[in-house]
Amino acid sequence: MEEINLGTTCDMHVHVRDGEMCELITPTIKEGGISVAYIMPNLQPPVTTLDRVIAYKSELEKIAPETTFLMSFYLSSELTPELIHKAASVGAIQGVKCYPAGVTTNSSSGVDPNDFTAFYPIFKAMEEEGLVLNLHGEKPSVTNNSSNQEDIHVLNAEECFLPALKKLNNDFPNLKIVLEHCTTEAAVNTIKEINKNVTDSKDVKVAATITAHHLFLTIDDWAGNPINFCKPVAKLPKDKKALIEAATSGKPYFFFGSDSAPHPLSNKAKHVGVCAGVYSQLFAVPYLAEIFDEYQSLPKLKGFVSEFGFNFYDVKPESLKSTKELILYRKEQSIPEVITNDKSIIVAPFQAGSKLNWSIKWSS
Amino acid sequence: MEEINLGTTCDMHVHVRDGEMCELITPTIKEGGISVAYIMPNLQPPVTTLDRVIAYKSELEKIAPETTFLMSFYLSSELTPELIHKAASVGAIQGVKCYPAGVTTNSSSGVDPNDFTAFYPIFKAMEEEGLVLNLHGEKPSVTNNSSNQEDIHVLNAEECFLPALKKLNNDFPNLKIVLEHCTTEAAVNTIKEINKNVTDSKDVKVAATITAHHLFLTIDDWAGNPINFCKPVAKLPKDKKALIEAATSGKPYFFFGSDSAPHPLSNKAKHVGVCAGVYSQLFAVPYLAEIFDEYQSLPKLKGFVSEFGFNFYDVKPESLKSTKELILYRKEQSIPEVITNDKSIIVAPFQAGSKLNWSIKWSS
Repeated sequence: MEEINLGTTCDMHVHVRDGEMCELITPTIKEGGISVAYIMPNLQPPVTTLDRVIAYKSELEKIAPETTFLMSFYLSSELTPELIHKAASVGAIQGVKCYPAGVTTNSSSGVDPNDFTAFYPIFKAMEEEGLVLNLHGEKPSVTNNSSNQEDIHVLNAEECFLPALKKLNNDFPNLKIVLEHCTTEAAVNTIKEINKNVTDSKDVKVAATITAHHLFLTIDDWAGNPINFCKPVAKLPKDKKALIEAATSGKPYFFFGSDSAPHPLSNKAKHVGVCAGVYSQLFAVPYLAEIFDEYQSLPKLKGFVSEFGFNFYDVKPESLKSTKELILYRKEQSIPEVITNDKSIIVAPFQAGSKLNWSIKWSS
Repeated sequence: MEEINLGTTCDMHVHVRDGEMCELITPTIKEGGISVAYIMPNLQPPVTTLDRVIAYKSELEKIAPETTFLMSFYLSSELTPELIHKAASVGAIQGVKCYPAGVTTNSSSGVDPNDFTAFYPIFKAMEEEGLVLNLHGEKPSVTNNSSNQEDIHVLNAEECFLPALKKLNNDFPNLKIVLEHCTTEAAVNTIKEINKNVTDSKDVKVAATITAHHLFLTIDDWAGNPINFCKPVAKLPKDKKALIEAATSGKPYFFFGSDSAPHPLSNKAKHVGVCAGVYSQLFAVPYLAEIFDEYQSLPKLKGFVSEFGFNFYDVKPESLKSTKELILYRKEQSIPEVITNDKSIIVAPFQAGSKLNWSIKWSS
């Protein structure tokens, strides 16, 4: 039987929420084939203090003791350079997530992406500490009545954000930055352009994560199927092709971040106000295998899902909660319609009801 | 009090379904300010016979005796030139609706829009009879793996259809054609281009209908709000601006067709397989007044909602079931969350819960 050892797998963009949802979802990180998970801070209220991030990590480790958690702060005016230095010195966080206000789930405390300068002291502290700045790279939608200003909408929101990414890289050339869940050919090209002189993966300062679901979806898939609605929205076929090309390219500045974002099914099956997010954690690696297999790129999967993220975040082997490695093997499995904890929370996984050609197990 | 007499209002694209839904929805044509309604034939099975179209019209007239119904056949291989001539001679239909297979509600019996030649004998008969060909102008979505063919998706499906429209106009220059529910700047420009030499409204052969909801919506409004999901999908801000410009232009080749398409709320509040369609019938004219007022174009509303469609379809005054004219006046009203018939059918109207600045009444 064909087996592929993927090593220490990393998902560098994970939402596990809190409370009952957290108890249901956190174990599925490992079940989906992921060893190291970088946890998003968009709880309500957002995670912005040392006490909270330590308590959150401790809670997650209790639920999933074999998963290695990397933690993050939520960029807001509550952060200070002193707090950044302190959190870094005790190893409490690996990065800070920046949400433009109002673009996705629990982003109302986010920042104005048209002017990051208020946060430059924070970024300077992060640069000094080697922390990662995680960017939700979308401008908020705006329709202009004058014709000399560009309208911003869900389709071009990411492309309109790219100049801000380039400016940040220019102003903080040693700050590690991730353009999270990139969805467009334009974003892929910008990341390639920024890295055009990079010859050693240790020199990568600006990377992008790519989700599993954006390798499958285009606009037609979420039009009429709210379960596939997420932010950034899946774009056009040409964009999906560019993402697949990037993910399978073997370039160290493209690595996996699932942006698995569970919502109760009742918040997806609505006629107004559907929550943005695709829950993909339970089959994270098998989804990827499906695409990499289809594009004859399985040998490139280990770099994308293990090595590149691991190296970018400078994960210390001694910090791993488990040294088991992930083994991918060809065996069909079915995706259930929902997962649930005794019915108080019901979540529908990405591609519910479909079949996958690949299964996973952990090395002993 | 400001009152505007809109005359004999026409909605040239109406879905009233059949059965219980039909009983609930048909009276709302008049309640929404419409006197003459052109009825779509996409029942299950589609309306393709003389007996059925006569029976359907009779049923509608029983429910709404003061509404004038124009009727249509569903273009399919079941139609023959003989049937077209016969249906026209007895006044049973005013047009034939063409659905590309698979693009919207009950379109599975539709045609291949890449090749209309199989239907040329039908179109010839229609041209001779002065019947209207109503085009749902979208190519079905297709993603090509080779890069030299254009991908088709919900955003460019209409623009990709426009060459087929031009070819039909070229091959049947005297056939009256309506590009239904046009949604793009590209479509507006094509309609203008085709009509560039038209100086008399009687010479218009190719027109486009514009819905009320496409004057309000862009992609951001249906992303996450399935109640606003319809086909063709609402496009980008620049497209909405072009539609408003066209609707308020006073050009006789742009007129009102609501494409009001009711679905049970349970088919809109779903996480997969949401039915495409916006139900706007109950406030059809007040929605339009809202936009025309906002763009200082209320004097252009009568042409758009009454005269241009009336003239294009050559409606005979003696065929009207009522000679009452519609009076628009400024009075705030609220859109209910749902309309229902004793709870067996529940439909959510467009902009449920919002307020409108205009109300309507019929002349006595």
